[in-house]
Amino acid sequence: MICERVSDVIESILHQPFGSLAFPIAENTLRIRIRIKRNAVNKVMVLFGDRYQPIAKDLAIEMVRVDADELFDFFQVDLHLPTRRFRYTFFIVGREGDIWYGDKGAARDRQNAGDFQFPYINEADRFTVPEWVKEGIIYQIFPERFANGDQNNDPKHLAKWGDKPKPNNFFGGDLAGIIEKLPYLEDLGINVIYLTPVFASPSNHKYDTIDYYQIDPHFGDLNTVKKLVAESHRRGIRIIFDAVFNHCGNNFFAFQDVVKNGENSEYKDWFHIESFPIKTEPRPNYETFANDVVTMPKLRTANKEVRSYLLDIARYWIREADIDGWRLDVSNEVDHSFWREFRHAVKEEKKEALIIGEIWHDAAPWLEGDQYDSVMNYLFRDAIYDFVAKKSIGVASFAARLTKARMKYKDQANFAMFNLIDSHDTERFINSSGFNENSLKLAALLQMTYVGMPMIYYGTEIGMDGFNDPDCRKTFVWDEKEQNADLLTYYKKLIAIRKKSSALTKGDFRSLIVDEIRQIYGFIRSYGTEKAVVVINALPIEQEIEVELPFTASEAKELISGKEYLVKEQVVKIKIEGEAGIILQF
Amino acid sequence: MICERVSDVIESILHQPFGSLAFPIAENTLRIRIRIKRNAVNKVMVLFGDRYQPIAKDLAIEMVRVDADELFDFFQVDLHLPTRRFRYTFFIVGREGDIWYGDKGAARDRQNAGDFQFPYINEADRFTVPEWVKEGIIYQIFPERFANGDQNNDPKHLAKWGDKPKPNNFFGGDLAGIIEKLPYLEDLGINVIYLTPVFASPSNHKYDTIDYYQIDPHFGDLNTVKKLVAESHRRGIRIIFDAVFNHCGNNFFAFQDVVKNGENSEYKDWFHIESFPIKTEPRPNYETFANDVVTMPKLRTANKEVRSYLLDIARYWIREADIDGWRLDVSNEVDHSFWREFRHAVKEEKKEALIIGEIWHDAAPWLEGDQYDSVMNYLFRDAIYDFVAKKSIGVASFAARLTKARMKYKDQANFAMFNLIDSHDTERFINSSGFNENSLKLAALLQMTYVGMPMIYYGTEIGMDGFNDPDCRKTFVWDEKEQNADLLTYYKKLIAIRKKSSALTKGDFRSLIVDEIRQIYGFIRSYGTEKAVVVINALPIEQEIEVELPFTASEAKELISGKEYLVKEQVVKIKIEGEAGIILQF
Repeated sequence: MICERVSDVIESILHQPFGSLAFPIAENTLRIRIRIKRNAVNKVMVLFGDRYQPIAKDLAIEMVRVDADELFDFFQVDLHLPTRRFRYTFFIVGREGDIWYGDKGAARDRQNAGDFQFPYINEADRFTVPEWVKEGIIYQIFPERFANGDQNNDPKHLAKWGDKPKPNNFFGGDLAGIIEKLPYLEDLGINVIYLTPVFASPSNHKYDTIDYYQIDPHFGDLNTVKKLVAESHRRGIRIIFDAVFNHCGNNFFAFQDVVKNGENSEYKDWFHIESFPIKTEPRPNYETFANDVVTMPKLRTANKEVRSYLLDIARYWIREADIDGWRLDVSNEVDHSFWREFRHAVKEEKKEALIIGEIWHDAAPWLEGDQYDSVMNYLFRDAIYDFVAKKSIGVASFAARLTKARMKYKDQANFAMFNLIDSHDTERFINSSGFNENSLKLAALLQMTYVGMPMIYYGTEIGMDGFNDPDCRKTFVWDEKEQNADLLTYYKKLIAIRKKSSALTKGDFRSLIVDEIRQIYGFIRSYGTEKAVVVINALPIEQEIEVELPFTASEAKELISGKEYLVKEQVVKIKIEGEAGIILQF
Repeated sequence: MICERVSDVIESILHQPFGSLAFPIAENTLRIRIRIKRNAVNKVMVLFGDRYQPIAKDLAIEMVRVDADELFDFFQVDLHLPTRRFRYTFFIVGREGDIWYGDKGAARDRQNAGDFQFPYINEADRFTVPEWVKEGIIYQIFPERFANGDQNNDPKHLAKWGDKPKPNNFFGGDLAGIIEKLPYLEDLGINVIYLTPVFASPSNHKYDTIDYYQIDPHFGDLNTVKKLVAESHRRGIRIIFDAVFNHCGNNFFAFQDVVKNGENSEYKDWFHIESFPIKTEPRPNYETFANDVVTMPKLRTANKEVRSYLLDIARYWIREADIDGWRLDVSNEVDHSFWREFRHAVKEEKKEALIIGEIWHDAAPWLEGDQYDSVMNYLFRDAIYDFVAKKSIGVASFAARLTKARMKYKDQANFAMFNLIDSHDTERFINSSGFNENSLKLAALLQMTYVGMPMIYYGTEIGMDGFNDPDCRKTFVWDEKEQNADLLTYYKKLIAIRKKSSALTKGDFRSLIVDEIRQIYGFIRSYGTEKAVVVINALPIEQEIEVELPFTASEAKELISGKEYLVKEQVVKIKIEGEAGIILQF
């Protein structure tokens, strides 16, 4: 019977037969999730079968409660069907009553609930990301500030390496510098480099492109890029470029043609122009990035010629320089239909190329599988910022924020995320935390053990600091005496741990401990029989924790300290320092 | 303060900044919806602004409660911003507490709730459907059974017109017959004809195509189609063809090539073949429509050549015969990426062409705006079937089912729906209702006054009956003495009423009365100052109703009877016969 209490449960249920709640993960396998009011149900069953078969032939399978946020439990299960045509209904065993749940809603009997339909798993629609992402550890470089490898291409009026960055000053960093420092990066252990823009542009950040086909002369040329990619590949490091396709620089040839020829320009439909001639005062009469940034005219990607021009660029750099993917600047303001064509072009040119959007908010509409592989995971960053750096939320909110972010997306995208704690667009994490090195180490530990690729913003690993842009874009500190050697060692250790652990790179994620009183957070990563249990102590004092395991084991190795622990009756007793964490391997 | 009760409200809230909950309806206008536990809130406000502007500049607007189902209220509002870059947060004034609701969830203050983002309304992503759909009234024809206009093209072994349809018998209906009967259709008042397949095929239904480029010789040829379209257009009637692209017939040239040449066939990748040579016993070693329908091999639309072949067909018939759109058979089993290319091709060939999928369940993933314009609205049919024909649900469930279906989709699709009560794939409505003519009339009234295009299955308007396929595919009864003249008159009247009323064709929809005790259902359609109020009485006895209007008026005209009614203190008192309805015009 549906009593009053059960009614509240019904209102909390969320399932749709698409998006992040029903997505194929293999040729014949559909992963489904359902969200239900927290702690309200004992069990969720799924009855499913081929859409053309009678209900009597249906199979029943129990769902697993994979996680929870403050309000909801999330259940998940994988359905296998050789015919790939799914019909399914939920049977929810509630604490205060049972209900069927289907496409017609909640009901006392199956027929009135109806069936959800996932009509067919089509190969052309399947979301696949490059297999290598699971092993990926990213290093983000702002080329003008990383290393100056070639003094001959330096801009005039160079500021001194180490000086304070200003919006418009230059320090001479270049691609030759990156090539020179590859041994450092290899030693650190990263295997993906994401470079902010490198194409010809008058600015130090180069987000105002003049020529998408030319490497900025202060950075190098086509040969330098080819060498960078080849040398990187030789060391097992992939290279990702930054595609600034939302807007160009005002010195881009097409925009200059419009400036010169006005209404008669053959490029006038490449932009969003209100009137001719082009003017910038009192405000620009053309659409720009953000509001009235006159140096960045917005490109009109609805225009076929613009599309074709940009897609050629996307293909060109993969073909010519063998780059391994594109990060897409301001990608949420460019149309979905362009990104669909972009994915098609990029994957056709290089099947294993990666596509990462810059989206700071819910990116679900771009992560359906037809556009990007992943995004810069600012939802992850925001959660760590609030919890670890600012301590403005507790562990329960933190865990909930991570769960919510993961449940927004299909797992293919979750494993391909760029999990960052800082970037060229934020203050450095060490600054956010009030220069608390323990906080930074804790954030790094979470990054290195979470689902998705950890992304290190150049220099964060040696303790570089910086407030918001331009301060976060300081020159790299190459003098080892000035580096935080202890921090660097810690980063290297974490990276090595992650790379050696299939559980940490490829494993499923489940929350294990969310202790709001002691501010303890723990989770399990499992891959086959391999398991890693990560536990962090967010309070600034040492705490002894009893980690109850949901599996049997006799002993565990803590990977940071190398210590061995005995498991007694499925419990590991372990001391964790203040603002620190441990990684137990089983 | 968030008390226990408010917590239940929070769990019921559904909003996502995409899909049917946030969609552009104009260049600068975003329509947003939010779903909240029924009767739990007094007011919902939206605070919104340009994403690059400070929150202090935000605008506030109150949402309108546009409808409800059993559990939830749905609120809606349109946000206008010249810059097209939206950030918004909900402020929910609950009966037992207020809350903010944003992308981080529910919170006591705005900052912790966060903002939803709709980053940019891109013209290339905007969902537009042909303007003519709002005026559309569809007539579905199964050509083999409608009219035999040309005896010279008749199949051999013709059954007698009027005989019982069998799975494999033929009656000689053809395109010449449809041309001949256009005056009948024009007189009836319809303005769109949807034809089930007309291409060469051995069956009477022609869903097993042999040649997509040839009109079935028993139906006519290219010239007949051209004449049909031209004559129809002259009368203001559009023609929609049926695209059977999920599968072909086993006599299709490409499949026959595989049958003959096996592994060496250049067409072997056009299908899903398990092994060679092709066999059909004990079961086919190739994938088919449904399970083991050997005459219908499934086409492999992931294959570029297949795509290109099918897209050429889609373009060809628009270009050659000037047809006005395609209805897509078994469209839910063909990949989304194919349908995106299909939309592109079709709209490029004819901007005002219509695309309608055959989907019997939740079709949201196909109605984002990048694939179809609409679907055969079986959710509408199912609701009317249960409520009007079977009386297995009451008015509250019926109203809820309609609301749920409407809220699943963007309004562009809602206005383009094919609202049917029967088709070639169902028993006729008159049979479903136990041959209750009043039920049929009531269903027709609902069809003709609801949002979306009414679709009449040939002959339903003259009282033709028929159980499931093949019985529902009887030959049209042209002898007027055998037709239900009263019913036909009623249909003509309803069609004329709809066509004259902008409120009924273009108007917003709001529920007005859902009276479970008296089984009265009422709704308002409003377009500008024009309003239509529809009230139906589902009980089999006459009832006197007091219709309380949410607007002021002095008098109303009932459009079916032509009677005038006075409005007293915003109330119209009116008697409605059993199983009947009225349409008040204001």
